[in-house]
Amino acid sequence: MSGRVTAQKKRYEISRRSVADAQTPFVRNCWYVAARSEEIGQSLSSRLLLGESVLFFRREDGTAVALSNRCPHRSYPLDKGRLEGDDVVCGYHGLRYGSDGLCKAIPGRSGGATAFGVKSYPLIEAGSFIWIWMGDPEAAEQVPSPVPEWLGHPDWSVETGYLHVDGSYVHMHENLLDLSHLSYLHASSFGTPEYAAAPTEVSIEDDDIQVWRHVECVLPDLYAVPLGWRGERAMRRSGSQFVSPALHVNTGLFENLDRPDASVRRPTVKVAQLLTPETQTTMHYFYALCRNFAVDDAAVGAGMIAGMTKAFQEDQAAMAEISAQHATARSDEFYEFDIPTDRAGLEMRRLLKEMADEEMRSANA
Amino acid sequence: MSGRVTAQKKRYEISRRSVADAQTPFVRNCWYVAARSEEIGQSLSSRLLLGESVLFFRREDGTAVALSNRCPHRSYPLDKGRLEGDDVVCGYHGLRYGSDGLCKAIPGRSGGATAFGVKSYPLIEAGSFIWIWMGDPEAAEQVPSPVPEWLGHPDWSVETGYLHVDGSYVHMHENLLDLSHLSYLHASSFGTPEYAAAPTEVSIEDDDIQVWRHVECVLPDLYAVPLGWRGERAMRRSGSQFVSPALHVNTGLFENLDRPDASVRRPTVKVAQLLTPETQTTMHYFYALCRNFAVDDAAVGAGMIAGMTKAFQEDQAAMAEISAQHATARSDEFYEFDIPTDRAGLEMRRLLKEMADEEMRSANA
Amino acid sequence: MSGRVTAQKKRYEISRRSVADAQTPFVRNCWYVAARSEEIGQSLSSRLLLGESVLFFRREDGTAVALSNRCPHRSYPLDKGRLEGDDVVCGYHGLRYGSDGLCKAIPGRSGGATAFGVKSYPLIEAGSFIWIWMGDPEAAEQVPSPVPEWLGHPDWSVETGYLHVDGSYVHMHENLLDLSHLSYLHASSFGTPEYAAAPTEVSIEDDDIQVWRHVECVLPDLYAVPLGWRGERAMRRSGSQFVSPALHVNTGLFENLDRPDASVRRPTVKVAQLLTPETQTTMHYFYALCRNFAVDDAAVGAGMIAGMTKAFQEDQAAMAEISAQHATARSDEFYEFDIPTDRAGLEMRRLLKEMADEEMRSANA
Repeated sequence: MSGRVTAQKKRYEISRRSVADAQTPFVRNCWYVAARSEEIGQSLSSRLLLGESVLFFRREDGTAVALSNRCPHRSYPLDKGRLEGDDVVCGYHGLRYGSDGLCKAIPGRSGGATAFGVKSYPLIEAGSFIWIWMGDPEAAEQVPSPVPEWLGHPDWSVETGYLHVDGSYVHMHENLLDLSHLSYLHASSFGTPEYAAAPTEVSIEDDDIQVWRHVECVLPDLYAVPLGWRGERAMRRSGSQFVSPALHVNTGLFENLDRPDASVRRPTVKVAQLLTPETQTTMHYFYALCRNFAVDDAAVGAGMIAGMTKAFQEDQAAMAEISAQHATARSDEFYEFDIPTDRAGLEMRRLLKEMADEEMRSANA
Repeated sequence: MSGRVTAQKKRYEISRRSVADAQTPFVRNCWYVAARSEEIGQSLSSRLLLGESVLFFRREDGTAVALSNRCPHRSYPLDKGRLEGDDVVCGYHGLRYGSDGLCKAIPGRSGGATAFGVKSYPLIEAGSFIWIWMGDPEAAEQVPSPVPEWLGHPDWSVETGYLHVDGSYVHMHENLLDLSHLSYLHASSFGTPEYAAAPTEVSIEDDDIQVWRHVECVLPDLYAVPLGWRGERAMRRSGSQFVSPALHVNTGLFENLDRPDASVRRPTVKVAQLLTPETQTTMHYFYALCRNFAVDDAAVGAGMIAGMTKAFQEDQAAMAEISAQHATARSDEFYEFDIPTDRAGLEMRRLLKEMADEEMRSANA
Repeated sequence: MSGRVTAQKKRYEISRRSVADAQTPFVRNCWYVAARSEEIGQSLSSRLLLGESVLFFRREDGTAVALSNRCPHRSYPLDKGRLEGDDVVCGYHGLRYGSDGLCKAIPGRSGGATAFGVKSYPLIEAGSFIWIWMGDPEAAEQVPSPVPEWLGHPDWSVETGYLHVDGSYVHMHENLLDLSHLSYLHASSFGTPEYAAAPTEVSIEDDDIQVWRHVECVLPDLYAVPLGWRGERAMRRSGSQFVSPALHVNTGLFENLDRPDASVRRPTVKVAQLLTPETQTTMHYFYALCRNFAVDDAAVGAGMIAGMTKAFQEDQAAMAEISAQHATARSDEFYEFDIPTDRAGLEMRRLLKEMADEEMRSANA
């Protein structure tokens, strides 16, 4: 087999030059979710995002603030200091920073405002989340709001969740664009056997990458129970859409094939998959589960988010396993083989690579 | 002392260019023990061997199978999937592999057999162990069976053991070729004070490296108790033989000097020391203790393997200590000094280096 | 802000070429504290100092001995061997070393003394500590005793302590030369709010770097209680002196402003801050608290060393936080900004860099 492996590996290496992998530099010019709104209060906290330690707090007027967490004097983390009103006081030597990041006072130095400070990151708070811009600040204004219109819309409920993942966000995006894995990885949670074999439509237009899957099945309990459709035949249309490096949207449209009248209100589930790189090989996995049925039924929401979290923990475990395989694979023999359902994922990786290359060119220009 | 250290270090560096150390690439063209037979069943498991993650299972006919554990589609470990009959189904996207490693089916792709697959490793199962070939498959057929004739022979009992060692298999081979350490490292287990000073014979002929030691002593309890020779004078002849990178054989021949008639049946112990690198600095340490006396006495076997395991745990701890010293030693001052009992060990390291260099040349040719 | 950051970063990079940081090679030609006297007895122990594993024991006459801990035969750590009288016997193959480090006997080799051995480090034992010289042995004799005259002097009490620190000794020296941090990092231990703003005098003459701070305040309980000055106004004069890479001295002179007669005996505290690098990013933090009042009152001593240890644990935690920030900071954006109170610290770092460069030049000459 070794001659075949070698040829396969050569083809692989050429094809991989044009697509992103776990080692590709982050795309910074993008709105990423930094936190769930409820996580940030009038106290100091920090999180590692895209490899940078970021400080979070709310001003007295409630506005969320994100600053570089490293005091540029002697590198003490600002989250170990003190919040005084809207100012952050470093816990090492007392340097005082305003919520704009500028240093306002230095003990032992006369005079007030200084010309130096810590980086301040643009934020948007909407739809239960705080979104951060970690790229070129000027580019931020040209980018439309990252928040889908149904996220936080009163006609839709929202349930949110978070998992820390020992894996690259590139692998997670690839996971989400090929839902044939539901029949295997999620066989015992929200997958059904028909899923992998169901007809799919892939649509790729510029930056818009979508996969639709039409599955005739008895819905898994996660959906069948809240809809009251247990044991009934249904059409499940699943959409997977890559929206940005930070956002993938899953859509589930359900039709009752046994009782068409049950589908009049077009029951739909939307999941915002909010992927934020932490380091090249780890990520923050936020998600928001939205539905347009049983909107006010808290028990339905609690049951569905719990079921979905269980399934996402299967992805979390898989990402860690894949990272471990990448870490131990012999580099002289490593290649990956593509199958038909990878088409959308490869397009997404091509797009990520282009975005990263484009940022690199701008930074060096 | 510093001038002397420098000269010593220079001599050392020249001499070390021709012998293997922990960083020398593995010798792949060799049969290594992968597992004890009882470890592999009709279910999926994996082990890291020579830096590669290897999948193990048994076919329905009982034959053991070893495949690369990484699904070459998206690097999910196959041992997290499912065994269906003799096929392995990947737990991520359902790719199906036959026990020959070839991919038989890909969900979402019509047609059956494919031209790609995972590497399949030749195996030999004999003498309580499963042996694996991780080098050039064509070379495997030219290499004779690695299994010593007494291992599994009905005239000999077998007891097996396993320890994971945080150390290089090169250091362990060196350990085994200089048994003068029995008087020190194993003073409280199977060593006796006379051991280090006893007369030795070193015989080196091409690939055959042997050391024999003739020790007149009262045998340690480990041997004296099963032989019924406690407190009696004995001649203990210990042979240490480097057979291959994967195998070292210890032989113990015992003669009762007080009661010569007790030695008529030539009581002998053979230990197969089965060393399989896991990474450059860690190894799997399998061993098989065989004896030609009290062959059917299970209590003797249990006592002897327990005592031997206790002694081997002293080697296991020593290897970890040595690794730690190598890791912290200042590279600009590092040298090792050879003593007369190192002769066989240095020959073994010279041979290992030649084998590794030869494989490198073949791979590049 | 990004244009400003870039200019700041460029200035920073030029200025940092001439001062030491955590990555600067150790200054070896210096007496460092290796251990508290009570730690070393007539048994084998070891400690990692300046990146080297060092063996310690006492000869039968009580003299402390330090040797390289790695047996140069096959790198087994000597502290896992045996002390026989004044000799160390390696626990692997029995090589015997005298307390001068020379190998006296090798099992299996006739003849006694050999021409090889392990490095022996000069030691000085004084003032409750054992000091080690890890640089050029010839240079040791030209360097005066590192022990301050009050350390171990009968007019002064001594209390000692030890903390392991996950941070560079360079950062700790910098910490000690800018005590403005007492008002922030130590606000709840031995700092008071007036501290950061109090007038300071910096004196830099060749190798002598001192900072004096004159603080009118109510003393913190750590000092007020043993002096019997609780709630009374006092002048606290604090001296910070960089003596060597291994030693920083803090001096506290106290004057009672409400009751001048209480100050007649000039109550003084001296703290020897004994910093010994372990690796580039970790250190041994020894300290000795000496006072010239209540010298015989054991309860005062116990209370003061406990209070000081609590404060030093705040430094220990801060050093670990700073190390973590250095480890995750984006190198393309990293710079540090200096404030007026950094003057002495930067001079110290300039001196450390000169010493390290000078040693490098000598070694290459």
